[in-house]
Amino acid sequence: MNRIAVGIEYDGSAFAGWQSQHSLRTVQGVLEGALGAVAAEPVSVVCAGRTDAGVHARAQVAHFDTHAERSSRSWILGANSEAPEDLAVLWAQPMPAHFHARYCAEARVYRYLILNRTARSALAAARAAWVTRSLDERAMAAAAAQLVGEHDFSAFRSAECQAKSPIRRLTRLAVERRGDWIVIEAVANAFLHHMVRNLAGLLIAVGKGDQPCDWARTVLEGRDRTLSAATAPAEGLYLWEVRYPAAFGLPLVPADGVPWADQL
Amino acid sequence: MNRIAVGIEYDGSAFAGWQSQHSLRTVQGVLEGALGAVAAEPVSVVCAGRTDAGVHARAQVAHFDTHAERSSRSWILGANSEAPEDLAVLWAQPMPAHFHARYCAEARVYRYLILNRTARSALAAARAAWVTRSLDERAMAAAAAQLVGEHDFSAFRSAECQAKSPIRRLTRLAVERRGDWIVIEAVANAFLHHMVRNLAGLLIAVGKGDQPCDWARTVLEGRDRTLSAATAPAEGLYLWEVRYPAAFGLPLVPADGVPWADQL
Repeated sequence: MNRIAVGIEYDGSAFAGWQSQHSLRTVQGVLEGALGAVAAEPVSVVCAGRTDAGVHARAQVAHFDTHAERSSRSWILGANSEAPEDLAVLWAQPMPAHFHARYCAEARVYRYLILNRTARSALAAARAAWVTRSLDERAMAAAAAQLVGEHDFSAFRSAECQAKSPIRRLTRLAVERRGDWIVIEAVANAFLHHMVRNLAGLLIAVGKGDQPCDWARTVLEGRDRTLSAATAPAEGLYLWEVRYPAAFGLPLVPADGVPWADQL
Repeated sequence: MNRIAVGIEYDGSAFAGWQSQHSLRTVQGVLEGALGAVAAEPVSVVCAGRTDAGVHARAQVAHFDTHAERSSRSWILGANSEAPEDLAVLWAQPMPAHFHARYCAEARVYRYLILNRTARSALAAARAAWVTRSLDERAMAAAAAQLVGEHDFSAFRSAECQAKSPIRRLTRLAVERRGDWIVIEAVANAFLHHMVRNLAGLLIAVGKGDQPCDWARTVLEGRDRTLSAATAPAEGLYLWEVRYPAAFGLPLVPADGVPWADQL
């Protein structure tokens, strides 16, 4: 068997999330269909981070096993020819059998994009959250700083989260304004279900002035999801990067690989 | 009567172009519907540059006359609430009766975006042209330089073009590479039908090495559309800016108003 890793970009708008579900259009289902057509046999893919409905990916990573012998170029061209236009395979690479897209990942990077102005954007529809009230990005950054570190993130975990432990190591939570756009970057070893969107929801509440900066610590220490802010909408969220040990030699997707890299 | 100017952004993918056509979904039709709902009376809009099916706009400008008295904020919020998500009104401003979105425009700026790599992009689907063969952006820029100036652009005009004269003043035709992206910027007093896409088509042929740089001048001087390259696809084209005399005091849409401003 050959183990192959692929880098995947998708517009999450028309997908019911990553994971295969009966009769729903999912990223996993569409990707397995495209790769299976190239392999001429069924394939099962395992990804680094299962994204929810409406969430986008600039550089998702997945692996699969196959008897098929194809060049990297053939996997890329074939899969992109088979897949619909809202999913693209950016790279493909043969991997050793001990590589696992999920378990070998050392860190996940997500970005959350907010358009902060009176008028909505047509070209960013379903590609960014839209907040009309002016956001104070300095207050958001100050609140974010209180959440970095290894903590019990129960307050930012959805009720459906199936992780055994609520402890995660959040190594970065940064807020940056670029004109009318605000970008939140979150880096952790792994994330709980809805964690980035719940972090973004809290930061938006602080940015609006509805809550003080210190509220971040209060919510974190309370460990009670019901005391936090609303979950921010899926459409602003991008799985931006998955980091693996350098020894695996996985390709880096260049920062400008998506057309709005400079806002994200 | 009040004359109002509006700045409009749209994703052209699902529109059959600007101009109202029986039973087709056009930008004009959708915009008139949204503004008419806010005005509570029918309105007719006139735009600066009628775009084709699939062509996007970052900052189209249009004007209309109405008996309705509304604040600029009410026009913006009301129209954005009425319009579908692929069309947005960015600004609205009362204008003197002698303002005309088409006839007062001094220059139009278009940008043409090309993704130049093996793998297509899911997030840029229908938002950029995709060329897999490596493009030589220096050859493209050299060819572009031969086309700048006041010329008879018959060689770059579609058969359906209704303009009386084929003479246009092309003041800028620039080619720039940013990573895997190539941006062509074209500025002219006005453009003929399909002119930017035909210019882009020629530059792509030169960039691929199918034709030498000097071919640009040959085609221009031949004044024969059938001797030029194929028309480049609509999805890469953006109406980027419309320039008016400063005395009109129209708002400038900031360069970072769309999420991929740094590629475009």
